[in-house]
Amino acid sequence: MPELRRDPIIDRWVIITTERGKIHADFEKMPENSQENNEACPFCMGNESKTPPEIISFREAGTAKNKSGWWVRVVPNKFPVLRVEGNLNKRGEGMFDFMDGIGAHEVVIESPIHNASFADMENKQVEEILWAFHGRIADLKKDSRFEYILAFKNHGAAAGASLIHPHSQIIAIPTIPVRVKQELEGSRSYYDYKERCVFCDIIREETEANVRIVSENENFICIVPFASRFPFETWILPKVHSSFFEDLQKTEITSLAMILKDINGRMIRTLENPPYNFIIHNSPCKSGNLPYYHWHIEIMPRLIKTAGFEWGTGFYINPTPPEEAAKFLREC
Amino acid sequence: MPELRRDPIIDRWVIITTERGKIHADFEKMPENSQENNEACPFCMGNESKTPPEIISFREAGTAKNKSGWWVRVVPNKFPVLRVEGNLNKRGEGMFDFMDGIGAHEVVIESPIHNASFADMENKQVEEILWAFHGRIADLKKDSRFEYILAFKNHGAAAGASLIHPHSQIIAIPTIPVRVKQELEGSRSYYDYKERCVFCDIIREETEANVRIVSENENFICIVPFASRFPFETWILPKVHSSFFEDLQKTEITSLAMILKDINGRMIRTLENPPYNFIIHNSPCKSGNLPYYHWHIEIMPRLIKTAGFEWGTGFYINPTPPEEAAKFLREC
Repeated sequence: MPELRRDPIIDRWVIITTERGKIHADFEKMPENSQENNEACPFCMGNESKTPPEIISFREAGTAKNKSGWWVRVVPNKFPVLRVEGNLNKRGEGMFDFMDGIGAHEVVIESPIHNASFADMENKQVEEILWAFHGRIADLKKDSRFEYILAFKNHGAAAGASLIHPHSQIIAIPTIPVRVKQELEGSRSYYDYKERCVFCDIIREETEANVRIVSENENFICIVPFASRFPFETWILPKVHSSFFEDLQKTEITSLAMILKDINGRMIRTLENPPYNFIIHNSPCKSGNLPYYHWHIEIMPRLIKTAGFEWGTGFYINPTPPEEAAKFLREC
Repeated sequence: MPELRRDPIIDRWVIITTERGKIHADFEKMPENSQENNEACPFCMGNESKTPPEIISFREAGTAKNKSGWWVRVVPNKFPVLRVEGNLNKRGEGMFDFMDGIGAHEVVIESPIHNASFADMENKQVEEILWAFHGRIADLKKDSRFEYILAFKNHGAAAGASLIHPHSQIIAIPTIPVRVKQELEGSRSYYDYKERCVFCDIIREETEANVRIVSENENFICIVPFASRFPFETWILPKVHSSFFEDLQKTEITSLAMILKDINGRMIRTLENPPYNFIIHNSPCKSGNLPYYHWHIEIMPRLIKTAGFEWGTGFYINPTPPEEAAKFLREC
């Protein structure tokens, strides 16, 4: 059973998991399968038996579960960092706090095509991926043990992906993560002072300045944030205030798929298929609608390494001015 | 002039610096000089003219500044992330806050030997490196513009080092970093509740449990922390409470050099010269002695990559139980 341990000084939890089986050296050599569709890839069509049984799939009528014929598949992670069975069993040992590593860890297989990207998928396919996120988040929220559900994507080895085949992950956790708390506190304190949502203000301000916008459509805007941590970092925000990703309506999903495809294409053209992390920043499961928190997506190309300075300060060094990054992405 | 920008939502500053000259692609290809001592290495003996003029050096009597004959040299970083001249010029632009990137960015060249490590240096040499930190921190603290001084080391490309030649960095910054604030707040809240320093309690608890200790001597203890973020992460703590690294006395410097050499040797033997970050966690310049904060060193081997989960939550996934890591390091 994995263990969640709390740092005794700051509000930081660590999942200690031996099930991934790395006690000794050889950490770097994660199995990266080849660029080619191949028999070894557990996410390719025809290899459904290489994953745990699917949780949901979108597939052709008449095809059987865990067989070919799907276009999006959600399966439990074969090497979960948290386990879904059991209770938290919160406890202490001397001054140290820990609990059992309870949670859910799922994989969204985004396409049957081994090296597809959002940019070259049909819009419909990206919509279906978003519907899979939508359905899984709504379902996991029903489990009262979970406080937060994180949906994210690691693309490329430098961004932590161990498989090329396009996929994202959904992790449900039994506590509100410190990073999320900080964002909630920051946006609440802005709201208390101004009586406005800080994200709504950012959208207004960026629209007026018009130097960090990459693209927009009816429902979404994509910007390079003012204080970007990483070169070519982008955020996608819904134009109308909303706390929950899973409150998206059908037309908004279509719109979000369009802007995702667009920004992914711009990243690929400007940066030659960079490694990146994609994270949905959402409200906690049980928070209710929050006037001060605005869900959004953050996309971080991983072109530079974080090192001692970032670890020691929590600050970042970004060698690319956001205004120039936005110009490159806009004009590419 | 580099710019310090504040994220409008959370207390996170980013240094935007174009002086490092990376606007476009090709971020990954940092110039890594070869394993061999060579003419191109700006830190090798005889190449003193390839660095900005030295700030201090420890060198043979009778040798001239910026010439051969030194054993430790401190120079300004040739590509500083912050500039030492000028004032902060704090200002806003609409809702966004920024200031000029004022600070100091120095490099401690730890040895004339191109690929030396703490483990194979004489104890005296490691002491001299610590005296260089000591002197530079004490000197930079006199500049009232600076709120925090960070001393750290990136070793190996995966830990963000761009040169092999052993060196550390010292950065003085005009604001207390968020990471430091969190540690101060966490340890103060523990102190308010218990009237004891959390780090002193950790030392007591670890000494009693005796399962996460790697080594110790008269003045220092080295442990694998209970909630280690990274496999084989270690912390070195002074056994007697102290808020400031720069309060170290001569015998303590000798002792710290010994334990640093020891843990570095254990890491090299167990993990085959891993990339790592080494960070001195110190009190802010102007805080005075703090009963609740205990300076210490954190060493983080970079064997695994941080990815979407860590960025989205601020949590970590560690596949190596701290107790097993300590056993490996202890018995190697």
